[in-house]
Amino acid sequence: MQTKNIGLRNIEVADTKISAIDGINGKLIYRGYDVLDLVKKSTFEETACLLLNDDLPTQDVLSLFSEKLVTTREIPEGLEKMLRSMPKAANPMDVLQSTVSMMAVHDTEKVDDRITNYSRAINLISKIPIIVACWDRIRNGQEIIQPSKKLNHAGNFLYMLTGKEPDTETARIFDICLILHAEHSFNASTFAAREVASTRANMYAAVSAAVGALSGELHGGANFQVMKMLLEIGSEEKVEPWIKNRLEKSQKIMGMGHAVYKTFDPRAEVLRELSRRLAEKTGQPWYAITKRVEEVTEEEMKKIKSSDIFPNVDLYSASVYYMLGIPMDLNTPIFAISRVSGWTSHIIEEKFAEAAPKPMLYRPKAVYVGKYCGPSGCEYVSIEKRLTQI
Amino acid sequence: MQTKNIGLRNIEVADTKISAIDGINGKLIYRGYDVLDLVKKSTFEETACLLLNDDLPTQDVLSLFSEKLVTTREIPEGLEKMLRSMPKAANPMDVLQSTVSMMAVHDTEKVDDRITNYSRAINLISKIPIIVACWDRIRNGQEIIQPSKKLNHAGNFLYMLTGKEPDTETARIFDICLILHAEHSFNASTFAAREVASTRANMYAAVSAAVGALSGELHGGANFQVMKMLLEIGSEEKVEPWIKNRLEKSQKIMGMGHAVYKTFDPRAEVLRELSRRLAEKTGQPWYAITKRVEEVTEEEMKKIKSSDIFPNVDLYSASVYYMLGIPMDLNTPIFAISRVSGWTSHIIEEKFAEAAPKPMLYRPKAVYVGKYCGPSGCEYVSIEKRLTQI
Ligand SMILES: CC(C)(COP(=O)(O)OP(=O)(O)OC[C@H]1O[C@@H](n2cnc3c(N)ncnc32)[C@H](O)[C@@H]1OP(=O)(O)O)[C@@H](O)C(=O)NCCC(=O)NCCS
Ligand SMILES: CC(C)(COP(=O)(O)OP(=O)(O)OC[C@H]1O[C@@H](n2cnc3c(N)ncnc32)[C@H](O)[C@@H]1OP(=O)(O)O)[C@@H](O)C(=O)NCCC(=O)NCCS
Repeated sequence: MQTKNIGLRNIEVADTKISAIDGINGKLIYRGYDVLDLVKKSTFEETACLLLNDDLPTQDVLSLFSEKLVTTREIPEGLEKMLRSMPKAANPMDVLQSTVSMMAVHDTEKVDDRITNYSRAINLISKIPIIVACWDRIRNGQEIIQPSKKLNHAGNFLYMLTGKEPDTETARIFDICLILHAEHSFNASTFAAREVASTRANMYAAVSAAVGALSGELHGGANFQVMKMLLEIGSEEKVEPWIKNRLEKSQKIMGMGHAVYKTFDPRAEVLRELSRRLAEKTGQPWYAITKRVEEVTEEEMKKIKSSDIFPNVDLYSASVYYMLGIPMDLNTPIFAISRVSGWTSHIIEEKFAEAAPKPMLYRPKAVYVGKYCGPSGCEYVSIEKRLTQI
Repeated sequence: MQTKNIGLRNIEVADTKISAIDGINGKLIYRGYDVLDLVKKSTFEETACLLLNDDLPTQDVLSLFSEKLVTTREIPEGLEKMLRSMPKAANPMDVLQSTVSMMAVHDTEKVDDRITNYSRAINLISKIPIIVACWDRIRNGQEIIQPSKKLNHAGNFLYMLTGKEPDTETARIFDICLILHAEHSFNASTFAAREVASTRANMYAAVSAAVGALSGELHGGANFQVMKMLLEIGSEEKVEPWIKNRLEKSQKIMGMGHAVYKTFDPRAEVLRELSRRLAEKTGQPWYAITKRVEEVTEEEMKKIKSSDIFPNVDLYSASVYYMLGIPMDLNTPIFAISRVSGWTSHIIEEKFAEAAPKPMLYRPKAVYVGKYCGPSGCEYVSIEKRLTQI
């Protein structure tokens, strides 16, 4: 590589008022509010409304927002048909990406101002869980479940997925997961959404790009890998030899370490407690095994590299989702169910920020390192004379 | 804005061997070859093959590539059904984005190596023109046309769009347009594709994001605006007052000026000649009017700003497409028909470049400029006590 800005790491690309990550002190702030405060006092609905606006909503604003989320909670006939036409083995993230861009096809409103974008955001936040739940039932040959209008956002998703109304504690645990994953500054999917929005493309086009970016294993796929590891280990006493063996071979332990947080990821702390509560409730061993993975990895890293390592957001979310009865390959779609609130907030900020000097699309520079044979390029050799095979 | 890198302009973000733009000397180079050479000696098929590989193909490689392009040239039943289910007023770019991501749903091959990506690239290059042509016929209530297996890529698209086999000259003119638009380094859509691919997402997900970015009016929409201008002006003698009036009001002339080329855009030169030939052939006035727009804008800019201004790629492509009988709102989809060869080449480079030190997803930094009230954020005020309306 000749370029100096690999991965754009530490290149400041835009201002944002939406969130701040303090990797040194382990803080995550949404619009000024500590996420640790929000998980105690707020709900996903209020958090999404906070992200999309400038501050915590008043009762009127929140009621209107939540009401629209509920009235939009329906399964359009075309959506059901489209889902039924797909091969059952399809990757749920591919299913999600195509249905999200299909929402643009069906939204024939031409106006693209701040207000219509706010409505579209609500439409997307409302529909993405519906798409994920319906798809899971359809691929399993089960009846789809009509949305409930009385459950909250988190509870309705679990209901549409499983067909059973979750108890209050379970719904609240999932609600907290949604709050924790709602926003994380300019990660790859959010930046993809902003890149697309910077050309003035519509919100669905931008969210569809974000879903595409999230589908990559380096971005949204880690908690799936964590659960695979836990299942492979299988019991508490097998953790130590398993981890040691892996570290000896210089392999990474999934769910540990973070590129930005150099201390405890605040989200991991909350998820650890949720995992503990669910293990108590269900009697399953996954919290205990995960805890042991955390401890052994820490100890071993101290020995091997004399350095600290901390769990990231994916370590405990894996067992939480598993104990909530969510199929493992829905872990990434569930990330999207929550993160769509952050994506849409960023799209609105990208398109309508007052501070921007003028609309400016993201167009970085590439360093050309290919062949070049003089001011007019290489000589075009006619095809009969080309010898080298590619 | 507090950040210094607005729009990432001039931030070098990656190495590439695919293309080079020399804005000072007005050169565009694909894999070492001058695009002005390629439009004289090559075809779109060969150019796409060049972009996807490392050099001009031997006869064997090109034959295999072209053959696969043709055998893949078909309308899957599911595609036709999906298109027929869409509202006729839908934006063709939204239609394209959702059908491209739907291609992922139907591609259940799990392997994601260089060879499968090369095949997927061919599949996309082959299918995108089919999607665009079928959609145009379906929305107009016309029968769809089955692909021809004997026409070349350019000719087959025009045939499937109009139902008439184009004559040799017309097909060659469109072929040249496809060569000219195939690749242009890290523009917004290509960068969106690379951003998505950098997370290891699949090729369809990345191309779908690129289609989304291209749909924005700041990126793919300019030649539509040029044609609107030409139709509004209507005749040669009205050009001068129209342009003067617009410049007096400090409005931009679409199709003139470029952020990178500070001399003649080489593509504009070729397109000017194609427009002239088509005007001769069809007897239409659009070449003459466009030429006058170019002259008057140049003269006026000299007077007003004492600076040079040159036509960009969109100035003459507008009249070329119009005289080829292509509906104006297909101008951007046609861009995608050609550029998909560049996008897929970049996705393969992003995912499989040997030079990369390790997979590294693009994750820039944002500057937080929102509120922040102390180390634990602002105080969470309970909802009854919130006074400010948003
Ligand atoms: C997230 C991640 C990519 C950050 O990597 P990073 O920025 O290179 O982290 P650091 O620079 O702090 O790494 C310091 C050292 O610890 C090692 N390390 C980091 N995470 C590790 C892990 N999970 N297991 C084992 N070793 C690890 C690194 O290899 C590095 O060793 P080196 O100095 O010999 O090269 C990395 O921790 C990782 O791959 N984690 C596992 C995957 C995962 O859970 N991803 C989800 C992230 S939200
Ligand atoms: C492409 C474009 C955005 C490049 O803009 P840029 O990088 O700001 O170009 P420059 O810096 O060279 O512009 C120099 C001056 O010429 C003016 N100018 C540039 N293009 C102009 C145009 N098409 N009509 C009128 N004035 C123009 C600029 O406003 C600037 O004036 P200022 O110094 O008073 O601000 C601009 O030329 C444009 O908007 N063109 C029309 C839209 C178009 O055809 N887009 C497709 C591009 S492929």
